[in-house]
Amino acid sequence: MEAITFEKTNITGGFWKQKQDMIRNTTIYSVYNRFSETGRFEAFKFNWKEGMPNKPHIFWDSDVAKWIESVANLTLKKREPDLEKIADGVIDLIVEKQDKNGYFNSYFQHIDPASRFRNRDWHELYCAGHLMEAAVAYYKATGKDKFLKAMCRYADYIERRFKIDCDTAFRTPGHEEIELALVKLYECTGEKRYYELAEYFINERGKTEQDTYNQSDLPVREITEANGHAVRATYLYCAMADIARINGDSELADACRRVFNDIYFKKMYITGGIGSTSAGEAFTIDYDLPNLLAYTETCASFGLAVFAHRMLLIENDRKYAETIEREIYNGFLSGVSLDGDSFFYENPLEVIPRLRNRDKYNGGIHFPLSRRQKVFGCSCCPPNVTRFIPSIADLIYTKSDAENTIFVQQYMQSESEFDLRGKSVRLQQTTNYPYDGKLNIKYYGENAKIAVRIPEWCEKYCETAQNGYAYYDVTDGSEITLDFGMPVYLVESNPKLEANCGKYAVMRGPIVYCMEGVDNGNSLRDIITDASSFTEKADEELGVISLQTTGKRRKPFESGSLYQKAKYEFEDIPVKFIPYYAFANRDECEMLVWFNAKLKLRNRLKAIN
Amino acid sequence: MEAITFEKTNITGGFWKQKQDMIRNTTIYSVYNRFSETGRFEAFKFNWKEGMPNKPHIFWDSDVAKWIESVANLTLKKREPDLEKIADGVIDLIVEKQDKNGYFNSYFQHIDPASRFRNRDWHELYCAGHLMEAAVAYYKATGKDKFLKAMCRYADYIERRFKIDCDTAFRTPGHEEIELALVKLYECTGEKRYYELAEYFINERGKTEQDTYNQSDLPVREITEANGHAVRATYLYCAMADIARINGDSELADACRRVFNDIYFKKMYITGGIGSTSAGEAFTIDYDLPNLLAYTETCASFGLAVFAHRMLLIENDRKYAETIEREIYNGFLSGVSLDGDSFFYENPLEVIPRLRNRDKYNGGIHFPLSRRQKVFGCSCCPPNVTRFIPSIADLIYTKSDAENTIFVQQYMQSESEFDLRGKSVRLQQTTNYPYDGKLNIKYYGENAKIAVRIPEWCEKYCETAQNGYAYYDVTDGSEITLDFGMPVYLVESNPKLEANCGKYAVMRGPIVYCMEGVDNGNSLRDIITDASSFTEKADEELGVISLQTTGKRRKPFESGSLYQKAKYEFEDIPVKFIPYYAFANRDECEMLVWFNAKLKLRNRLKAIN
Repeated sequence: MEAITFEKTNITGGFWKQKQDMIRNTTIYSVYNRFSETGRFEAFKFNWKEGMPNKPHIFWDSDVAKWIESVANLTLKKREPDLEKIADGVIDLIVEKQDKNGYFNSYFQHIDPASRFRNRDWHELYCAGHLMEAAVAYYKATGKDKFLKAMCRYADYIERRFKIDCDTAFRTPGHEEIELALVKLYECTGEKRYYELAEYFINERGKTEQDTYNQSDLPVREITEANGHAVRATYLYCAMADIARINGDSELADACRRVFNDIYFKKMYITGGIGSTSAGEAFTIDYDLPNLLAYTETCASFGLAVFAHRMLLIENDRKYAETIEREIYNGFLSGVSLDGDSFFYENPLEVIPRLRNRDKYNGGIHFPLSRRQKVFGCSCCPPNVTRFIPSIADLIYTKSDAENTIFVQQYMQSESEFDLRGKSVRLQQTTNYPYDGKLNIKYYGENAKIAVRIPEWCEKYCETAQNGYAYYDVTDGSEITLDFGMPVYLVESNPKLEANCGKYAVMRGPIVYCMEGVDNGNSLRDIITDASSFTEKADEELGVISLQTTGKRRKPFESGSLYQKAKYEFEDIPVKFIPYYAFANRDECEMLVWFNAKLKLRNRLKAIN
Repeated sequence: MEAITFEKTNITGGFWKQKQDMIRNTTIYSVYNRFSETGRFEAFKFNWKEGMPNKPHIFWDSDVAKWIESVANLTLKKREPDLEKIADGVIDLIVEKQDKNGYFNSYFQHIDPASRFRNRDWHELYCAGHLMEAAVAYYKATGKDKFLKAMCRYADYIERRFKIDCDTAFRTPGHEEIELALVKLYECTGEKRYYELAEYFINERGKTEQDTYNQSDLPVREITEANGHAVRATYLYCAMADIARINGDSELADACRRVFNDIYFKKMYITGGIGSTSAGEAFTIDYDLPNLLAYTETCASFGLAVFAHRMLLIENDRKYAETIEREIYNGFLSGVSLDGDSFFYENPLEVIPRLRNRDKYNGGIHFPLSRRQKVFGCSCCPPNVTRFIPSIADLIYTKSDAENTIFVQQYMQSESEFDLRGKSVRLQQTTNYPYDGKLNIKYYGENAKIAVRIPEWCEKYCETAQNGYAYYDVTDGSEITLDFGMPVYLVESNPKLEANCGKYAVMRGPIVYCMEGVDNGNSLRDIITDASSFTEKADEELGVISLQTTGKRRKPFESGSLYQKAKYEFEDIPVKFIPYYAFANRDECEMLVWFNAKLKLRNRLKAIN
């Protein structure tokens, strides 16, 4: 299986064109402005002094690197001279300040040189990895190789210190990232040493340094469970999957499968969110997915999506593509506001703003923010949004030359051109997905097969599909037309997942819906929704399709008492759901995904689907 | 209004006789043995040295003091020579070691003399208060005044240091307790200075030392909300109520009313549990009563019960007596096992044992223990059980000479003799409460009135009752017979209390019921209970009345997946509830108070009540 990278595909309209335009016109500048105001660009000048504001921080290089990578990903489709000029300026500074030996880190060169390669937890190799990823992307987008060459020198230096001289205070990265970046550097430059350095870091991991938080408790081939800091985990799993793919290491591929299944079957929210505790921003135990306290970092959703994409290149299994879809329409996408200007770090599945005051005197439980922010002190998430969405077309196709087959993994209005068995093919996808479920694919090229993923919620093609993919023999000019429909359906979660017992979620195709207080009043948990039928209605303000029904809400207690003999006094109310990704774009209010519903809907529900 | 203390009443049978026998035969020895093993008694010899086990702790004096008070409360009804001998031994040591100036604290005399009266947070006056309470109780029970006199000397010394010389490093206690103890010392000895010292501490509080955690953020007369550490809070409110009663301070009484109402209407679990966060063992915001994470310390339930009792002496309002009843049959009583041998510090309203592992790698959320313990490092709760239950008859009656009325606040099989308007009266209560709701009261004495509290859940006498009390004119030999019934009924909580929205609890009379995993399997949240009727059945193993019905439980997911299109596949199951206070007396398992129930039960429910 091979990837068809976004270089080969243009998003030409529809849902994702709108999101890509938002990044290009708004978000890339928002992130730039916030990073600029907080001194993140200035830090590359190495002129901060004690007493000045905006003291540089150990992970700022990574923030700027991801911003440059985002600029590169936009530039690859259409140059943005203003942005490119800023990027060039940073790159000039990097090359100017880079040590003769190749080392570059604005913090450890300028602020704390004595600590260089001394502290495993200080994100040094993480920053290096992001700089390398940015350099590769920038080279691909602009053809300029200055940054790439500088980062190759840095990679050479890291190789010498960590793999040859072994004179650093730690052996493997405390925050994984450089491993997958080194694979990219190898794939871009063809220099095998970079791949070998990635493999070295992977193979050394968990042998001498023991830390569950950053997945060092076991040698990677012995991993059976997703553990520790969720972002670090997914970045590690990405590199493991890359290496398993490249060298055919079946033991490593098995570890990747185990850990993916552990997430998929036991540790993932319906939105794709992962990492259910703020303590360590980490995975916890099986089926422990509290909604109100979900940590579910935007970066972790990004990480799971790109890990799932790498798994698809090892083996074509629908669950990987389903997971990607779950992320990009839900738990990842909620990380950015509809206007592209503000961001969630955490993406909880329930919000009760007033409860954020519960421990006002005592500290205690961490509740996620209920409003998106323009900037965070730890601002890893916004530039993951800006680099991922412009490259989202990475996810549409995979191919197998051996099977002469193109796999349609995601549905996005797009045009693609790439090689199959050495011969150029073109594909045109026409779709309004996820607004509706119609999909038209035009194929131009030699005889081949096209395998279209059938969404799990679509019952229409299951009989003819093989393992969830509908196969078509295509010749030059062939056209494939499918209609998945776009059903509204209720979802229940595994009885082992206590947080959702007795509750239901409503989805429309791939999109998880939620209730918000601005539409439904507060005390959302107290609404018993009539889930027997929903009316779809365009919400002009949010630009989404809302789902409307009715429900019952208990009347306020006349006595004001805390408890009363049950009176069952309800008032009938209209109930409105909006897509989860669109929550928190109006006034601060409650939000709820898993709701109380009327039961015994079996017959009526069949009619909806 | 005046109290009828337990000296005047003998519990002669029924529910509370069994509990008192358990304390006398088992619990008092259990607590002694655990305290003995951990060096708490040995500490009074002042011979601990560095390197020895069981280093004395700042609050150990209070533990032993409460144990001696418990012995006294038992002794008052029947002497226990072995226990009395142990108590005498400790008292001898206290008097032997007491400083010439009157000071006594085994920790600050022996372990850290330099810190005496230096640190407000170190429980020094709290220990002093418990020693005084114990001394008063021991004098009343045995007539021996050695301990009482020693503690008077200590009180004199505290008065001099804190109120006259004012040379201590803090002005008011960091953990309230001595204030209510000084009132007891005053009421026992008649020495007004002790009352005035209590009043002094109360009046100084919140003036110079600012700390919400221990209720010092405001002068006490300005308190509007229950805040901070729940046990400290209730002990303070007790003293405030005492002083308001004694000196008729209406401003102070108003503050007591406000804070009681704040708890009663916004911050109390259905079990009477208070203090909903482990962070500071504290009250939080209004209607924030999470079940799984409830802190709800046994001591806080004790504290609220005795505060409510003091409020009854200020004004006869049924809600105070209801609150006492809520505690003694639920959130307080759950603090001790049915065999009297082990204890809960926290009394959560839901237990899911497996979730206690959620943050195994990272720390994070504190989950209450799911098993009672024999001993705690911080062992304040067990001796509150042993001192409260032997004196439980304190709660049965109050009287008003002015109104020539005896108020029956609680229903316990008992015989009492006390003065009304200076003439002796006798009362015999015959009842099997709370097993059933029948109550017979025989009265011997001059013409008077008896006002019997009608339980809030009893609809039978509401028409004739005045403010929840049924009044009877009685003459010598009069007999009053009532039958409250003992209905099983569903309870709903205020819609503002998010944790319980959509859920119901079941009660039988005053007793909150719960489901346990040993009876119902795990995933209790997933059971939808048919709450239209319950069958009462004696549970021989636990010695309680269980409630049995049927319900539905979802079938396990065949796919093992986390989410699926809702299938509504249920299996019919029997469902069993037991009294909340009896939970966790068998194997470790889940427990649930607020459950999912079938709705639209209006008509059927009327039939149950």
